[in-house]
Amino acid sequence: MNTSFWSPGLEQLEPYTPGEQPSGKTLIKLNTNENPYPASPQALTLLAQRDFADALRRYPDPESCALRTAIAERYDLSDTQVFVGNGSDEVLALSFYSFFRRAEPLLFPDITYSFYPVYCQLFEIKSRCIPLLEDFSLDIEEFSGAAGGIIIPNPNAPTGRYLSLDRVEALLQLQPERVVIIDEAYIDFGGESATQLIDRYPNLLVIHTLSKSYALAGLRLGFAMGQEHLIEGLLRAKNSFNSYPIDAIAQEVATAAIRDRAWHTDNCGKVVATRRRTEKALLELGFDTIPSTANFILAKPPAPGAEALYHALRERGILVRYFNKPRISDYLRISIGTDDDMDQLIRNCKEILASQS
Amino acid sequence: MNTSFWSPGLEQLEPYTPGEQPSGKTLIKLNTNENPYPASPQALTLLAQRDFADALRRYPDPESCALRTAIAERYDLSDTQVFVGNGSDEVLALSFYSFFRRAEPLLFPDITYSFYPVYCQLFEIKSRCIPLLEDFSLDIEEFSGAAGGIIIPNPNAPTGRYLSLDRVEALLQLQPERVVIIDEAYIDFGGESATQLIDRYPNLLVIHTLSKSYALAGLRLGFAMGQEHLIEGLLRAKNSFNSYPIDAIAQEVATAAIRDRAWHTDNCGKVVATRRRTEKALLELGFDTIPSTANFILAKPPAPGAEALYHALRERGILVRYFNKPRISDYLRISIGTDDDMDQLIRNCKEILASQS
Repeated sequence: MNTSFWSPGLEQLEPYTPGEQPSGKTLIKLNTNENPYPASPQALTLLAQRDFADALRRYPDPESCALRTAIAERYDLSDTQVFVGNGSDEVLALSFYSFFRRAEPLLFPDITYSFYPVYCQLFEIKSRCIPLLEDFSLDIEEFSGAAGGIIIPNPNAPTGRYLSLDRVEALLQLQPERVVIIDEAYIDFGGESATQLIDRYPNLLVIHTLSKSYALAGLRLGFAMGQEHLIEGLLRAKNSFNSYPIDAIAQEVATAAIRDRAWHTDNCGKVVATRRRTEKALLELGFDTIPSTANFILAKPPAPGAEALYHALRERGILVRYFNKPRISDYLRISIGTDDDMDQLIRNCKEILASQS
Repeated sequence: MNTSFWSPGLEQLEPYTPGEQPSGKTLIKLNTNENPYPASPQALTLLAQRDFADALRRYPDPESCALRTAIAERYDLSDTQVFVGNGSDEVLALSFYSFFRRAEPLLFPDITYSFYPVYCQLFEIKSRCIPLLEDFSLDIEEFSGAAGGIIIPNPNAPTGRYLSLDRVEALLQLQPERVVIIDEAYIDFGGESATQLIDRYPNLLVIHTLSKSYALAGLRLGFAMGQEHLIEGLLRAKNSFNSYPIDAIAQEVATAAIRDRAWHTDNCGKVVATRRRTEKALLELGFDTIPSTANFILAKPPAPGAEALYHALRERGILVRYFNKPRISDYLRISIGTDDDMDQLIRNCKEILASQS
């Protein structure tokens, strides 16, 4: 590869590796934390019935006003406290740019969303990993001292562990001069959102996505919520990068999805019920599971162990996620599918484990 | 505004200002170079008829394979010579990051797409403006010497002036060690694309958009074409910023649009015919026009002048673009609408000019 035309340093970037997206449909896909159910019928019906020709011909609303209003109403905020982006990954990238390019290092857990260190490389941000405790819980006190900011997913990924709101508040108080991002991609599956702390903490930015609890991973829509001065910072970066990140269809579909609260509550309830069933079944098979408040379970299988089980499941058409990384290489991360998906997972695990003994 | 939480330097960013997107429908909108006709019926029918529930539930193809294949076939390239992004603005931003962060300054014309200097600020890229000649044509020789790269729109925006392919080739030869981007957002309205030079010039990157000649500004889809080593550089940056920039719907709609070549040829022909009529009518009214190969015309109105005419037209419900900038503050940039749109523009201009004399 001829890299002579690249900007210096580009070659050293180590990009994020997303979970596999196989094009066939026969696989049971429990590897990227997608929702097993179709999205809100209100959103899907709008998509099917609306004539988008004129909306597509014109540039979309660069400020996504209607969508931001729907989000603001959902979380009891004002429109100026909401920022939307092309997936929460874009929102995260712009947040790193806007708040964390500082002399002091950004702090995040050693086991966390693996895109965080990539953003740091991209924008030359120094970082320091804070080791989780043995049980993968967060030691809040370790986040004190000189820092350029803090970012944690809550519940954490890929552990699924939830940090209670009073502990989140303690974190916010540890670094009052720096932005603390609570990345709540999985909060709707049983956690309590930090959005209710926004009015009291000028340093709090909460990030959500429609990819998980809204069953709209294919739509690419994420958003950040915080006091206006933080949203203004994000807008400054966004408007220097891409004026129109949200297409006309996504703006309307997302707005309808956010407004369909009954569907959302029902959907999250179903996923949580299936998670509880699955957790129980895994424990019965001899797995160790980390208590999850997300739409996935991090679980340590008995012999032959995580990597062998990952491959054996894959051969049987079931995809789960295996991270060949320190501390979690004995675990599998299993997304919550339908009850039927999980029954098939459990049955296959049982067969594979039995054949090994 | 409390900016204490912002990364140092963010406050100094001067974001790009897009053309006004009024929400009412009564205006004749000739200010953002949108296409006046609805997009390819193949694309719009697919959108109306396809059930997207499952595609939206899952993450989209992070590599947009089907779309890249359609583009590659359209331009006689291989898939690995095509990069897609969330509008050509995102493609441009990632290109600036990937190729222009160098010790030497990036070169671009003094009158050009006003997002270029914004990307330079965003990524701390030095730049040097090369003055256009009196008639707004490009003096190729001025682009020699130490440079971090070159970027020009062709046809240029907002002048509409086209640079012939042999002159583009001369530019590529002037900076063989640096990336030269030809931003061809408007090329389909009468120019010859530099894509045919890709196999011979390892430093050439050509950028296109579906926002103009495909009537899909609302879809946010742009793409870059060049030799594989340049595309690899872009992928490295993209995968460190956002793994899934193109949503599932946009991937399919864009693929259908690209494949409908008959519609595209016909549409461009109609816009060009209307441009010729409009140019003639403006000249008859006493405007000076810059020869345009785009879907807009930069024109210098007679007294009362550009700014007064801009406001007078606006009062009558016709939006054109006025840039209060050196060298072009005597001009209006008028997008090409339907024949009827342009008849109304001309009639209103005539009335306004008559009322002034």
